[in-house]
This record gives sequence, C-alpha cells and structure tokens, in this order.
Amino acid sequence: MDIRSLLGKRVTERIKPSTITEMMILVKKHNAISLTAGEPSSDVYPVEALREAVEKALADPGLLSYYPLSVGIVELRDWIARWMKKDGILPEGYSEESVILTNGSQDGLNLVSEAFVEAGDTILVENPTYPEALLAFGKEGARFAGVPVDKDGPIVEEMEKVLSKDKVKMFYTIVNFQNPSGCVTSERRKRQILELARRYNFLIIEDDPYRYLRYEGNHEGSYIKMAQEEDMVIYLGSFSKIIAPGIRCGFMVVPSKIASQMGELALATKLSLPAFLQRAVFELLSSLDMEAHLAHLRETYIARRNALDASLRENAASCGMTYDLPKGGFFIWARVPWLKDCFDFAKYAVLEEHVGVVPGAAFYPDDLSADRSTLRLSFAKTPPDVAREAGQRLGRALEKYRAKYEF
Amino acid sequence: MDIRSLLGKRVTERIKPSTITEMMILVKKHNAISLTAGEPSSDVYPVEALREAVEKALADPGLLSYYPLSVGIVELRDWIARWMKKDGILPEGYSEESVILTNGSQDGLNLVSEAFVEAGDTILVENPTYPEALLAFGKEGARFAGVPVDKDGPIVEEMEKVLSKDKVKMFYTIVNFQNPSGCVTSERRKRQILELARRYNFLIIEDDPYRYLRYEGNHEGSYIKMAQEEDMVIYLGSFSKIIAPGIRCGFMVVPSKIASQMGELALATKLSLPAFLQRAVFELLSSLDMEAHLAHLRETYIARRNALDASLRENAASCGMTYDLPKGGFFIWARVPWLKDCFDFAKYAVLEEHVGVVPGAAFYPDDLSADRSTLRLSFAKTPPDVAREAGQRLGRALEKYRAKYEF
Repeated sequence: MDIRSLLGKRVTERIKPSTITEMMILVKKHNAISLTAGEPSSDVYPVEALREAVEKALADPGLLSYYPLSVGIVELRDWIARWMKKDGILPEGYSEESVILTNGSQDGLNLVSEAFVEAGDTILVENPTYPEALLAFGKEGARFAGVPVDKDGPIVEEMEKVLSKDKVKMFYTIVNFQNPSGCVTSERRKRQILELARRYNFLIIEDDPYRYLRYEGNHEGSYIKMAQEEDMVIYLGSFSKIIAPGIRCGFMVVPSKIASQMGELALATKLSLPAFLQRAVFELLSSLDMEAHLAHLRETYIARRNALDASLRENAASCGMTYDLPKGGFFIWARVPWLKDCFDFAKYAVLEEHVGVVPGAAFYPDDLSADRSTLRLSFAKTPPDVAREAGQRLGRALEKYRAKYEF
Repeated sequence: MDIRSLLGKRVTERIKPSTITEMMILVKKHNAISLTAGEPSSDVYPVEALREAVEKALADPGLLSYYPLSVGIVELRDWIARWMKKDGILPEGYSEESVILTNGSQDGLNLVSEAFVEAGDTILVENPTYPEALLAFGKEGARFAGVPVDKDGPIVEEMEKVLSKDKVKMFYTIVNFQNPSGCVTSERRKRQILELARRYNFLIIEDDPYRYLRYEGNHEGSYIKMAQEEDMVIYLGSFSKIIAPGIRCGFMVVPSKIASQMGELALATKLSLPAFLQRAVFELLSSLDMEAHLAHLRETYIARRNALDASLRENAASCGMTYDLPKGGFFIWARVPWLKDCFDFAKYAVLEEHVGVVPGAAFYPDDLSADRSTLRLSFAKTPPDVAREAGQRLGRALEKYRAKYEF
C-alpha cells in the first residue's frame, strides 16, 4: 500500500509549502540577520508579567481540565469585547458571546474558511496579500480574485470590475498596515466597500493584527463597527503582535447568530484550547498598563523602522530600491525594478550576505501576475544597529546580484 | 444580508452539538456529581511539576516567538519517538520526523480527516465509538459504516461483510479500553485486521489515549509496530489522560513519506502551537518519574472503578443494569434493558438526583441503530466516597424513572 494514494485533494492539490516559513528556516540555518518574519522582537515580550500570570492561572488546577467551551474562557472573551468597544471598533450590541478565542489568527482564518468556503467559491483578496490566509482559504478549494491597493486601501473601481463579473463569497482584507503593502484602508473606502458588500451580498473578513502598532496619525474606524447590526463582517484580532506570538492567542468576533455554530466547528477541530493559558493571558492583560506597553512598542519599532529606512536609502536606493515608508506595522514593501526573480535573490541574499528577506512574489494569489521584483522587509526583530547592518548587507547583495547576472 | 445564507455545508449540514459537552455543561449548571467527562481528576495533575516546567521554559523568551515548525518542537517529538520505541509500540525505523504535536488528539483526528477524507468517503468505525471523532470525520462529509465489538475488539467477520460491499477509506479504532465499550483489541485481531487492510487497501487510524491506564493484565502490541515498514497506520497519542487535558498536548505518528505534507496542512490550520508550552511539557516529562506517576494514577483509578462498581452492584443492578468491568481506562459501559431513551434519562438523572452520565446512544454513528438503553459512566473524576454516592443517586434515579414511566 502507498499511503499517498489515499490522500485527498487538500493535500495533493491545494496545500503548498509556506515561503515565509522556508525563509525563516533558511535564515536560522545560516545564522543570517532576519528581515523575514512579521513577528515582534523577543526583547519586548512582557516575559516576567507572563510568568506571574501563568503562576496565578495554575493556582486553579481545574483550568488544566477540559474546558467545556470550545470558544474559550468567558473572562478573556469579555475583556476583548470591552476593550474593542472602548476603542470604538465594536458596536455596543456585541458581547463576549460573539468572541471566539483562537490559536493565533491562522486558526481564525481556518475556521472562517471551513465555515464558509465551498470548493470553487471565489474569494476577493488584496493583491498582494498575506499568503498564509491564501493557504487557509485555498485548502478548502477557494479560487481567488485579486484587487490592487493604493495607500488608502483596496481600489474600489477595481473591486467593482470583479464583482460585476464574478459571484464573490467573501472579501478578505487586512485593514491596518496591510501585510505586505503597508496600506491602511481609509474610512471612506470602508464605507464604499460596505455598500458593495450589501449590493453584491458578500462577507467582509476584517483582519487587524497591526492596529495598535501605529506610529503616525490617528486610528481609523472598523468595518465591524460601521456595519452595526448588519451581520456582514467577521473581525480577526490577535495578541501575537502586541504580547507575543508564542502564546498563540488570537480571537475572532462573529455575528451572534452564528456564534454557536462557529463554536461547534471549533470543537470538531480541537475540542478546546488550553484554558489555563487563556486565563494567564487574561491575568496578564488585567495587570498590564496597556497604554504604556503599547507606547513602548511603538517607540521601539519606530526606531527600528527609521534605522532600516536610513540604511536602505544609503545602501539600497542606489540599486533602484523604492518603497513608501509605512506608518505602522512591521513591513517595508520594497520594489527593485530590474529584479526578475525575487525568490532566487532572497536565497542569494541569505547565502552570500547573510541577510534574510521574503520574496514579494509569494504574496500574490496568482503566480502569473505576481510582481517578481518585490521584497518584504520586516524591521520588527532588528534593533537599530542590526537594522543598519541589514541594510548594508542587502545593498551589497543587490549590487553583487546585479553584477553577477548583468542586469 | 443574512450571514447564515453564506455558510457552507460543514456548518449547515454536517456539524452538530456535542452530547458529551452538553452533559458536562448541564452537570456543572446543576452542581451534580459528574460521571460524564472522560477526563482525569484534577487532584492527580502534576501541577507543581508543571509550574516548574513552565518556569524553565519561559527562561528562553525566544520560545514565545513564532515557532517555524508547525509540527512542534523537536525535543518533545524526539522524546515521544523514544518513549514509544522503549514501550515496544513503534518500529525502529521511525524517528521524530514522523511525530506531529497536536492540540489534543482532536486536532490530530481533524488533521487526519482533512488530509484523507473527501465528501462521500466511507469510514469504518467501531460501533459504538467516540462521537467527537465522528464529528471530525463527518465535518468533511464522511459516511460511516459501523462494526460491532466484543471483548477482544472489532469483530473481524463483521468487518469483512462491510469491506466486501463498500470501498472503505480508513478504519478508525480505539485500541485500548475503547471509548465507550472498554474493550481491548487483541494482537490476534490486529493481525487479522492488518491483513484486511492490505487486501482492501484502507488506512488504520490507531487512537490510543488510554494505553497507560491499564489496571489488569499486560500491554498489547500496536498496529503501527506490527505494520513495520508498511505505511498503513497512523497512531494518535495524548498526554491528556496521564498528565492533564488542559495542556492540550496530543501527538500523531505518521509514515515519514507524508510527514512534510501533514506539516503543511497543520500550518494552514494554525501556523504552530505554543512552543513554550511544548517545551514545558518536555521539561515536565524529563523530570517526572513516569513509572511512579503511572502507578499512582492506576492506584487512584482502580479504587474509583471498584467503588463505583460496588455501589452500582448494590444500587443499580436491581434496576437491571449490567456491564463488564473494564480492565483499564475511565468508563463503565452499562446497559439497562428497559430503558427506551437514554437521552431523556440522562437529563432526568441530573435534574432529579444530581448525577450526570452520558447517554450511550450518542456513541453510535447511526442514530437509527443506536442502542438507547446504554449509558457511559466515567469513574475518572470521582473519589471512592463520591463514586459510592454517585452509584446510589444513579440507582435512585433509575428506580424513580422506571416508576414514573411504568416500565
């Protein structure tokens, strides 16, 4: 018997390796400076507070039992609902009942995909977009239509072109400091897109991991708040970027009329997540001065962004690299016009100059139309001096690569 | 817009509420004695050792970053492979490469289902069997064929009847102290069933959470070991029953030729699980005297089993309750011949006598053929005195219920 002959389409046709993960592993293997992962730097994790929070949580051994609610512990779900309301991004009519805790946002993306996507459904996505979201939707057989973005978010006229031709099930969008492009969807665009959703009857998946990493300007309103009682938005949030990714604590907010069904789906996939860890996160959030913590994160990342920017202007601009400096989040989305194969270059940069980037073409739903002259550079994990060094290495890598291939 | 109109078949047709969870919640609400959940008692969790293990794990804040391997940390996967080999249930040719850490066994069941099941595939299951496994397979559109069991496991002749008629994709089996029937599949049966798997080309999913909770007799060999180099078995294990369910640490062992694909599937569903928690489990296992710990668990559960057994013989046998005393695991699988609706009785017992059981009919893949005179009684969480009280309450509930409905 060959077990592979029994595998289904998900594995044989739809799933593929993650480029971001492959680059992370390559970088680690070669001990390179990492501009790859969109993950916070471990020096800003509140480790001591987390240790105390776990200690408190373990004082109740009952939390080490099965937790009968697959959607997670009530107190953390309630904290999230109140936090979002205080921030003005959740309608008052929502309660903890609508909040489902997830193993990071990826688990939320997967639950959305499993709940809504049937093979052949068309999902509208930003072009470029987060490739692991494409994996979760693609796993269930989604087809993708891409809509280009500018600095204010998805271009509405381009969305209408797709919608007038194709039946679209949902629109997946990263609303703040979009991964990878860095754009922020303006409230005006959101209103226009909500109008399209009403007219064409599609769901909006509002993915928002970077909201609190805004370095300039003011917060924008959310789709889910704007939609009020209309149940047309699912919001995905996460503590990965502002606490630590390794606690794997994300959440989704769904209209209450589907909350119990989403809970049953979550149960079928995992019974429940570790309740003592959810309690620890709750304890941590309850004891943390969130304003001060976020201010510290912003300060840290602004310095890193600026250092990488300065170094790139000095060392990579001469190779033709251009980008818009992002006002938040983790990524510089760069373009090098003469670059014909960013995958090949990304490997070259690790092997030759020990600096890791993610090839930008991995962020396009359609390989054929992917812009292979793009690179995603994360400044999240590199302190200013390392960021400067990374820019120098990247500049050298580009120069040598261009010379080698005589572009 | 009504968001429900956009939901797919998984949610609208395939998923249903979990009877076990509903009973757990009902029991909690009415503060009843619980013979419901198949979960260890919190007084035997190694809480102090876990606290120390988490402390150690958090000394490496890098573990709070994204872990690039969706299959989990190498050291725990290696520990598991070595442990299984030492126990004689894994072929020497297997390594940590084949071990995938999961959020409890349910996550493993779901990954198996997503990897192999296509809508309409037939899955052979023991009849009765664990209903949450049916949820995971059913979610992907599996159809079920049931095979009855006796004390030595699935009845081979009955399996052949199904196999000669239907193309079967896989056989899902709980090999030790089966949930709910308590049977153990003998090595002789395993050899016969492996032969059937070769002949009819189906996969065996060997679910084994109760192995180390054996109270009498000797361990049996495993399917995966017997199959040696033939890649026809996936093994599911768990620390839920021997450490604590709330750490959500299960594992699956797959043939190495599909390991990377299973990892990509895991990545699409969740990126990765909390690495610091996996490290803590590794630290805990490394420091724990496992032999002594398991001996303590066995002693604890034997006393509970015997107390419940004695009390049931005294208080429920007169109502016609019969069962075979299980040699391990957590469950007494009882039958009360005159009982026509175990669902109704289970609610009655909680409301009237404050004792919770799980209606046995929930364990059948086919509602029509379900035996509605069965009850699953878990002795895991009830110390001997509470077990005695539970037996008395259950006896009274049966008597009153019989009198009320004049059976």
